[in-house]
Amino acid sequence: MSSSVLDPNKEQELKDLANKLRIHSIRATNASNSGHPTSCCSAAEIMSVLFFHEMRYNAENPRDLYSDRFVLSKGHAAPVLYAAWVEAGLIPEKELLTLRKIDSDLEGHPTPRVSIADVATGSLGQGLSCAAGMAYTGKYFDKADYRVFCVIGDGESSEGSIWEALHFAGLYHLDNLVAIFDVNRLAQSQAAPLGHNIDIYRQRVESFGWNVICVDGHDVTALCRSFQLARTVKHKPTAVIAKTFKGRGIPDVEDAENWHGKPLGSIAENAMSEISKLIKNVTKHKLSINAPKNDGTLSAIDFSKMHLCDPPKYNIGDKVATRFAYGTALVKLGHSCDRVIALDGDVKNSTFADKFRNAFPDRFIECYIAEQNMVGVAIGCATRGRTVPFCSTFATFFTRAYDQLRMGAISEANIKCCGSHAGISIGEDGPSQMGLEDIAMFRSLPGSTVLYPSDAVSCERAVELVARQPGICFIRTSRPNTPVIYDNNETFSIGKSKIIRKSDDDEVLIVAAGVTLFEAIKAADQLKDKGVKVAIIDLFSIKPIDSEMLIEEANRVGGRVVTVEDHYPEGGIGEAVAAVLSDFGTVQVKRLAVNALPRSGPPDALMNMFGISAKCIVEAVERML
Amino acid sequence: MSSSVLDPNKEQELKDLANKLRIHSIRATNASNSGHPTSCCSAAEIMSVLFFHEMRYNAENPRDLYSDRFVLSKGHAAPVLYAAWVEAGLIPEKELLTLRKIDSDLEGHPTPRVSIADVATGSLGQGLSCAAGMAYTGKYFDKADYRVFCVIGDGESSEGSIWEALHFAGLYHLDNLVAIFDVNRLAQSQAAPLGHNIDIYRQRVESFGWNVICVDGHDVTALCRSFQLARTVKHKPTAVIAKTFKGRGIPDVEDAENWHGKPLGSIAENAMSEISKLIKNVTKHKLSINAPKNDGTLSAIDFSKMHLCDPPKYNIGDKVATRFAYGTALVKLGHSCDRVIALDGDVKNSTFADKFRNAFPDRFIECYIAEQNMVGVAIGCATRGRTVPFCSTFATFFTRAYDQLRMGAISEANIKCCGSHAGISIGEDGPSQMGLEDIAMFRSLPGSTVLYPSDAVSCERAVELVARQPGICFIRTSRPNTPVIYDNNETFSIGKSKIIRKSDDDEVLIVAAGVTLFEAIKAADQLKDKGVKVAIIDLFSIKPIDSEMLIEEANRVGGRVVTVEDHYPEGGIGEAVAAVLSDFGTVQVKRLAVNALPRSGPPDALMNMFGISAKCIVEAVERML
Repeated sequence: MSSSVLDPNKEQELKDLANKLRIHSIRATNASNSGHPTSCCSAAEIMSVLFFHEMRYNAENPRDLYSDRFVLSKGHAAPVLYAAWVEAGLIPEKELLTLRKIDSDLEGHPTPRVSIADVATGSLGQGLSCAAGMAYTGKYFDKADYRVFCVIGDGESSEGSIWEALHFAGLYHLDNLVAIFDVNRLAQSQAAPLGHNIDIYRQRVESFGWNVICVDGHDVTALCRSFQLARTVKHKPTAVIAKTFKGRGIPDVEDAENWHGKPLGSIAENAMSEISKLIKNVTKHKLSINAPKNDGTLSAIDFSKMHLCDPPKYNIGDKVATRFAYGTALVKLGHSCDRVIALDGDVKNSTFADKFRNAFPDRFIECYIAEQNMVGVAIGCATRGRTVPFCSTFATFFTRAYDQLRMGAISEANIKCCGSHAGISIGEDGPSQMGLEDIAMFRSLPGSTVLYPSDAVSCERAVELVARQPGICFIRTSRPNTPVIYDNNETFSIGKSKIIRKSDDDEVLIVAAGVTLFEAIKAADQLKDKGVKVAIIDLFSIKPIDSEMLIEEANRVGGRVVTVEDHYPEGGIGEAVAAVLSDFGTVQVKRLAVNALPRSGPPDALMNMFGISAKCIVEAVERML
Repeated sequence: MSSSVLDPNKEQELKDLANKLRIHSIRATNASNSGHPTSCCSAAEIMSVLFFHEMRYNAENPRDLYSDRFVLSKGHAAPVLYAAWVEAGLIPEKELLTLRKIDSDLEGHPTPRVSIADVATGSLGQGLSCAAGMAYTGKYFDKADYRVFCVIGDGESSEGSIWEALHFAGLYHLDNLVAIFDVNRLAQSQAAPLGHNIDIYRQRVESFGWNVICVDGHDVTALCRSFQLARTVKHKPTAVIAKTFKGRGIPDVEDAENWHGKPLGSIAENAMSEISKLIKNVTKHKLSINAPKNDGTLSAIDFSKMHLCDPPKYNIGDKVATRFAYGTALVKLGHSCDRVIALDGDVKNSTFADKFRNAFPDRFIECYIAEQNMVGVAIGCATRGRTVPFCSTFATFFTRAYDQLRMGAISEANIKCCGSHAGISIGEDGPSQMGLEDIAMFRSLPGSTVLYPSDAVSCERAVELVARQPGICFIRTSRPNTPVIYDNNETFSIGKSKIIRKSDDDEVLIVAAGVTLFEAIKAADQLKDKGVKVAIIDLFSIKPIDSEMLIEEANRVGGRVVTVEDHYPEGGIGEAVAAVLSDFGTVQVKRLAVNALPRSGPPDALMNMFGISAKCIVEAVERML
């Protein structure tokens, strides 16, 4: 079987390499006294063949633009990945012994703190979406010949996100993508549900539009042949279903239960000694690595050039939904940089991402109703700075992808999210469609930016601002048409709010954003008629928050603050403002938020019923005085 | 084809019924001037055959224990469900015209505000998990012969959660479950990805272990035959893949794009008139409905009897992880009520749900690595009060199911969640495994309860408390062993905290929970040596929060409060406390939380590095004075 693929020396080298990877993994996890050596051992031949036969990459620069990409979806096998890079010469061997130490970047699960990981993995089932985003980018945006490889555990194949990604990759004919299923039969607490039923994996994955090859995952020749075959298959991604054994090569541990996530401890020395005996070292030379083809077509993107090609063009008082302005701005941004792309989950005619699709059909990715995969694909598209992805769906449906966003934050992913249909002001569709926890969710992501524009001018600028801001950024848009209140020339900054009403004798400060800003304005007018003057801040930048202005204005009005938001109380604007002001202890904050599970109804009636209308604001202010 | 299934009169009746459902749906959505009539029309024959031929149910009491269950996963087709119940006699016809009004329970998407919905739907792709939970309960816990039917849209079939549920139902041989895929080809913004490729649906669903029947979804006889067949298939659930047309029966709208979510407006009258012409009214009598078989075996569960069959048995100072105490308590609870069940996502040996499985193997559901489905199944298991499900996984992996939890809150689901491995104190596994946003997430759910026990005694009581508390309850457990600080007889309540250190001359109040409580105790000792006395509150009940005690103690110490939590700052304990205290404006709150993206390392070093250790608390207190 082997002659056409592999000469016997190379075959032995790859076998030896696999066993060296095993020994590295066992030694590193024993040094850290935690980790998953048995999960490494099942994948040893897969890693050996990928890194020293199949993949083309720059061993000095793991983030080379032309190199093949690799995603270890089963992130708990991190040591075998680190070990492969030790053998490739990038990581000094002794560094493996720093695994999981607080001053080492070789963390328990891979994060981009090490250059060999483009994305963090370790929350299972997410790697294939990221890999699909890389493959989509390679095929359709970079039009380059790098390929993408993703190693997936059998346990994590129960995650629906894997099937979303399989569906996506099949649909878009990602023939530059290879998924390797390391079917080692055993999950954490018991056998994986399909055990070694390789044929069921075959049927499932084939039905999702993939070319499927089933192999013995410990046979380096068979693996080489599979990858060679994968390269020849066009219009379809390839899945290699590799039958493997957990703990392969470790006496008494191979294929045994209760060895997940356990270093070998006292049996490590014997295991390494037994595995060493299998290494023949037939050649002494360092294994060659296939270099990528650098044809000079790819270059780093100059993100600093991204801007709105036309400034906002509205008249004060025009009624425009911020979700509509989002679409307008995204097109303007797209004209300034051809690496701005958009993704949406079959609601593009509601989020107005369809404006971008109409302007730049080749830069729009329809992700259908699969938000987890949409976010994962966006994270993949953004790796190595190849694109700036804007994903949109209803704000509340981003909750579907919270874990992907969380991992995106750990991945330091540069993705932009726009959530439309915020709050009860959407009205009749009812609570399932209302974003009432999205601020809490996006605020909780470390390093995130959260903007909540109230009118079309500020929304267009928000789009421009987040394009240039690194990390995960969220723009919250609203469904109803709201009046334009800012001049087209107004400037906005991340971390800065706007005072939109102020007088020398204000008694209370109202902090609002989005639809409630207009309720605050109405309330201020009603209060003025009663002889009470209030200041109003349009918060705009929810995170980072404008502590300076909040503190200054709160103190100026005598320490009386009312917040009002179309969001649940927890983790929203009220708590963010209260947290800032409570640092000082001289300010009273009354928080108005959606105070119960809402329901269907007209927006105005709902805002009154759930405590965030002008009437409720007036009452809160009056109670405070 | 039809004779053995259906007599010609009945066939015509079912056809007529389908058209009546269409007319109801068109009229209702026109009255509300919003909604999805075309999505109703594709499902009209499916609904007619289910409700007036196949299903056995009590038309007077939709939540009858013996009745077949029905889940409309494509919740936007709510009007056709309401219309079926109008025809079944439960809802007065004129009530349909209140659709989506603020004083009507006929909301835009079904919620359990109407008794005909067991679960809220409308966030797509979730219904099948709930239906699978109902079917699992029927087959394995109730051992009853009610069946479960779930209508799924083709658009939502892109959601991974559908495939998690298909996998689950196949694995557990849920032959009392029938999923009907309404393949109407058109999604919201464009065609669904697989169009009318019925055979691809067949291959995919078959490969997931289902019996599959493909039919013309507008042929009532074929539908009847499919359901009859489904009843005969054992050990497998059945999927009926129904080829349908969106807007079926509406001239110029059927199978046309751009008609998603739009009432017919001015063309409604003509459409209703055309559809009326198809109604033959061959019989005048009311259609009979199959009654369920009430064999007297099912009764309501007495939840008030749930308690720990043995009190906690620890010595003060014993070192026990709260996650371990969770498992211990769950077994004790299980002894008191055989309707307590447990679900876990292949981490039962880490969450210690395996103790429950070992004690009650028949009441444990292994959900494998598919958290969305686990939560959906739990919601289904809890419907009609059949069980009290406790689901467990790592706290951070509940983020995977945020949308299911959100819908669970709208469903008023009575489920209990336990998230282990909270915070950076898990150590070496690194950020992907650390729960640092789980408090924010669970707090944001309307009506939720969030408990965070610090020792084994309070953890055992937390399990008992949530068992009796309606709604979604969350218990946060920690990985490290922590000392027992409460007497076995100590009583705990939802909404009540504990003062664990107090003196007459306290200068600062420290609020903590979980691992940080022990840091606070250490800090208090160090401060005492320096002559500073502090009070300490073990918050325990994060939501509802003990406002009374917090305010009283904060004022008692002069308004100086430090919070410290193993969680990100946003939406956590610090913001919850700051929000309560900022209502008064006389208290200063300094919040210590995990202040950046964490990393792998030993727990103690991490707590110091990220700002939540005793040392950081001491510094915060000293800065305040």
